[in-house]
Amino acid sequence: MKEKPYKRWQAKLHEIIYEADTPAGKLFDVTLLIVILASITLVMLESVVSIQVRYHTFLNISEWIITILFSIEYILRIVTVKKPLKYITSFYGIIDLLSTIPKFLSLIFAGTQALVALRALRLLRVFRILKLARFLGASNHLAAAIKASRAKIFVFLFAVVIAATIFGTIMYLVEGEASGFSNIPKSVYWCIVTLTTVGFGDIAPVTPLGQFIASIIMVLGYGIIAVPTGIVSAEYTRKAYREEKDLDPYTIKQLNSTSPHPREVDVNSQSCSFCMAQNHKDHAKFCYKCGHPLHLKSSD
Amino acid sequence: MKEKPYKRWQAKLHEIIYEADTPAGKLFDVTLLIVILASITLVMLESVVSIQVRYHTFLNISEWIITILFSIEYILRIVTVKKPLKYITSFYGIIDLLSTIPKFLSLIFAGTQALVALRALRLLRVFRILKLARFLGASNHLAAAIKASRAKIFVFLFAVVIAATIFGTIMYLVEGEASGFSNIPKSVYWCIVTLTTVGFGDIAPVTPLGQFIASIIMVLGYGIIAVPTGIVSAEYTRKAYREEKDLDPYTIKQLNSTSPHPREVDVNSQSCSFCMAQNHKDHAKFCYKCGHPLHLKSSD
Amino acid sequence: MKEKPYKRWQAKLHEIIYEADTPAGKLFDVTLLIVILASITLVMLESVVSIQVRYHTFLNISEWIITILFSIEYILRIVTVKKPLKYITSFYGIIDLLSTIPKFLSLIFAGTQALVALRALRLLRVFRILKLARFLGASNHLAAAIKASRAKIFVFLFAVVIAATIFGTIMYLVEGEASGFSNIPKSVYWCIVTLTTVGFGDIAPVTPLGQFIASIIMVLGYGIIAVPTGIVSAEYTRKAYREEKDLDPYTIKQLNSTSPHPREVDVNSQSCSFCMAQNHKDHAKFCYKCGHPLHLKSSD
Amino acid sequence: MKEKPYKRWQAKLHEIIYEADTPAGKLFDVTLLIVILASITLVMLESVVSIQVRYHTFLNISEWIITILFSIEYILRIVTVKKPLKYITSFYGIIDLLSTIPKFLSLIFAGTQALVALRALRLLRVFRILKLARFLGASNHLAAAIKASRAKIFVFLFAVVIAATIFGTIMYLVEGEASGFSNIPKSVYWCIVTLTTVGFGDIAPVTPLGQFIASIIMVLGYGIIAVPTGIVSAEYTRKAYREEKDLDPYTIKQLNSTSPHPREVDVNSQSCSFCMAQNHKDHAKFCYKCGHPLHLKSSD
Repeated sequence: MKEKPYKRWQAKLHEIIYEADTPAGKLFDVTLLIVILASITLVMLESVVSIQVRYHTFLNISEWIITILFSIEYILRIVTVKKPLKYITSFYGIIDLLSTIPKFLSLIFAGTQALVALRALRLLRVFRILKLARFLGASNHLAAAIKASRAKIFVFLFAVVIAATIFGTIMYLVEGEASGFSNIPKSVYWCIVTLTTVGFGDIAPVTPLGQFIASIIMVLGYGIIAVPTGIVSAEYTRKAYREEKDLDPYTIKQLNSTSPHPREVDVNSQSCSFCMAQNHKDHAKFCYKCGHPLHLKSSD
Repeated sequence: MKEKPYKRWQAKLHEIIYEADTPAGKLFDVTLLIVILASITLVMLESVVSIQVRYHTFLNISEWIITILFSIEYILRIVTVKKPLKYITSFYGIIDLLSTIPKFLSLIFAGTQALVALRALRLLRVFRILKLARFLGASNHLAAAIKASRAKIFVFLFAVVIAATIFGTIMYLVEGEASGFSNIPKSVYWCIVTLTTVGFGDIAPVTPLGQFIASIIMVLGYGIIAVPTGIVSAEYTRKAYREEKDLDPYTIKQLNSTSPHPREVDVNSQSCSFCMAQNHKDHAKFCYKCGHPLHLKSSD
Repeated sequence: MKEKPYKRWQAKLHEIIYEADTPAGKLFDVTLLIVILASITLVMLESVVSIQVRYHTFLNISEWIITILFSIEYILRIVTVKKPLKYITSFYGIIDLLSTIPKFLSLIFAGTQALVALRALRLLRVFRILKLARFLGASNHLAAAIKASRAKIFVFLFAVVIAATIFGTIMYLVEGEASGFSNIPKSVYWCIVTLTTVGFGDIAPVTPLGQFIASIIMVLGYGIIAVPTGIVSAEYTRKAYREEKDLDPYTIKQLNSTSPHPREVDVNSQSCSFCMAQNHKDHAKFCYKCGHPLHLKSSD
Repeated sequence: MKEKPYKRWQAKLHEIIYEADTPAGKLFDVTLLIVILASITLVMLESVVSIQVRYHTFLNISEWIITILFSIEYILRIVTVKKPLKYITSFYGIIDLLSTIPKFLSLIFAGTQALVALRALRLLRVFRILKLARFLGASNHLAAAIKASRAKIFVFLFAVVIAATIFGTIMYLVEGEASGFSNIPKSVYWCIVTLTTVGFGDIAPVTPLGQFIASIIMVLGYGIIAVPTGIVSAEYTRKAYREEKDLDPYTIKQLNSTSPHPREVDVNSQSCSFCMAQNHKDHAKFCYKCGHPLHLKSSD
């Protein structure tokens, strides 16, 4: 794919579609969000038989209008970005495509219609539109804490699965088909339902021995929930502690009087038209990743 | 509304009704609490058909007595405060009004009766009556920690809702109407029931694939509960750490021997008769907000 | 009750019954525990109809044997302690009495039999018998942390009850009798079942609006569990921090290499024969509370 | 059992079977894992009646093939290790034996077949194969935190069991047989289901008083989950604090820039052919436990 010269109208449109710092960009993004929400509501209503029967035509037409709007947006996004392939293969690019394809496919195949619900993923854009550095920071903090305790959580979940397999088999042997534990996979499923303290009750032990073992499983499940919680808490606290220790007392006093999260940098909703990097510092003039100039304001 | 001169009897009544530091004020508040509890009990009993049928007259008369008592109290509160509009539009003012109106409305419209249960909100006054600075401090601490982790919790809840939408749609496609997943909204509802580990069991997956996906949802829900817990824990700990670091070792030793929460100031239950500000320091003579003199004791 | 002179045989028996440091005392306590466990098992088996029918005589006789044993033990405890009234009115004294009375009462009144299950409380003695300072320390730590966050937890539980009342009434109005929400108390009960993520499923919302409100309640319940957890975690951590800060770095290095809980003092299972104080330091010769000499070893 | 001279082919095989640092060793372990997974899947499928009926011969033959493979592996493990008895009596040795025996036993006794599910425990080997020091470190951290809070968690669980016994008896007295609380053990089981917030709903209180007591149990269960969580969190944090305090600020800065867990030592998947000790440091040439030389690479 040869790279075409980047024209002024492309830059303008890029700013409107990809960013939310200009009034036009903000308007575009808010409209987009409303359309996404309307689209999800439509899909949900369509699945309710009584509504589907009565408002069939209205729902179908609305669906097509939204699909066409999304298709136009998708094409514009490809056209206005400097490296279209990068957008197409990015997380949002795939989501955007998957939001339009199913409706077209439903002309050919039946049943693909419901995949339209994947549009819910588009709602993730809300974080960019809110343009709240605070929220971006918050989700980064979350991601960092989860990343740091990734290995521990994996070990924990693995142990849960093994425990469910063992206990599930035991319950299958103890309770048997009469109580609904009709095979090992079902028994393991019941065990996960119990260990996670969900407890549907569609299957429940009936024999005294089964109920005794179930009690052990429940107390176990109730107790081990402390483990991942403790891990995440400690990881968070450890991080906070390091941050604090690094600072001298004078700075801390100042910080205490101003903001609870001193180290967060204000970022804006711009994305580089060349490499699509995001989370640029406010007033940044060049992309921190590729050095490409950023289109800060239409008036620049 | 012209401001009328504030008379001595108004000040006296204000002290009794709005404060709990004098014996009369305490008596008033405790009586009020008992009447509120009695009133809530009445509303609850009224909704039980068998009781309603047998004790109809008694319940109705008691209801009217309480409603009239509340109405008198409401009028007195308006009369004895210097800025009645401020009280009427305040949180407690609206609650107090909503506690009396429904009964009167029930004369005209049927069904508004049950709204009387909003009186439960009046129970929040209990914190003032207990006159426990400790409790006020405790709820302030709670509020501060929740406020500080607000953004993170929002991100978390948003992610939960998106996950519920996606998984709900998948379960609708996999299980279908036969298992009770009759439409997407119901499926999303089931997904929230499962993710939050509530697990009613009114709807439950039947097919092996559905049960497998349900297992993933449950383990996910069980695991992510660690996230908000970790956030609040860390925020609490971080705050405690800053407080501690600020202090020199000598102070800490002293503090350890006296009280676990050194920085809490003793507040009393007074409220300014002019601007209605609360949480005044013990022995304060003037409102910290508007400078209006406070009526400390009847004997002053 | 006149205080009688304390004789040598009383001191001997006191050591055996109240303490667990001598071989005889240990034997007595372990025997006691086994009898308690046997007694609880008997009560449980008695309530199972099929077992009760078949082994009626055996169960009844065993019950009487255990009751007589407990009665003898109770009398011995009164006789061997210097201040019998203090024992009788103490927590364990009341439990011990309640463990024997019901069986005697069952001769006169029917139905009091099941109260025998209160004997389960006697199991709390296990901590003394285990003679594990570590365990005593652990439960003290627990108690201290819970005590320190008492006010916060009260505020939290109060808020949960108010929320359950409000939401319960709303659900009663929305769902009505058809779905099982037949009156407000039942609706509030359902709300507590849901907020605490228990979710029996005996009552479940059926209307779309009811399910929507239920979803909000569930997410709320799932989210607020973070609050008490955060409180207890932080209280624990804060306490640990103070302990650590107090120490100079050299001590800490030493501590790290020896024991994880440096400040715990070894206590033994003795209890003063005069004032019944417990948790004496190992090798203490006099009661830390009343100065009365302690009977360390039979051989002393 | 006389110790035979350790030959070169034994050393070679030992390296392949017990270690995962050489290509051959890695291949062996990955193959083993796949066979284990296949074997568990087979056992699960076999328990599903419809599949069992249709694919009986295929399942049976596959089962025998896997059992024979496991038997060969078990024999090889015994042959290639220097102290076979130590392996046979080790945790993995017993698991490996239990994975093969049931199938052979099923020729003689019916019903032992399902025990084959114990093979799930063999999955624990995955941690060694992943050869991720990080994961090993993670599980060590977990184990350490749980070990440190062992006593506290025991006290907690003990209190839960006593509470379940007391409340179970009360519910039995209040609800009686009509509501499904047909005897005390069943009632205690229901109480554990409720306290742990599992809530199957197969048994649920029907009388108002029973529902009131159930509400108390649920709020209690919801509240006390904070306790084990707080314990583990604090233990984790305390440990982290000590580690941090020990370090001077310069080291911390360096550590922050490199790795989140500075104190972890890289270990590999080797196991000593003499004493079977594991978790050797990377590039270690002698066993840290018995001084026996380690076979690092086949080419050494």
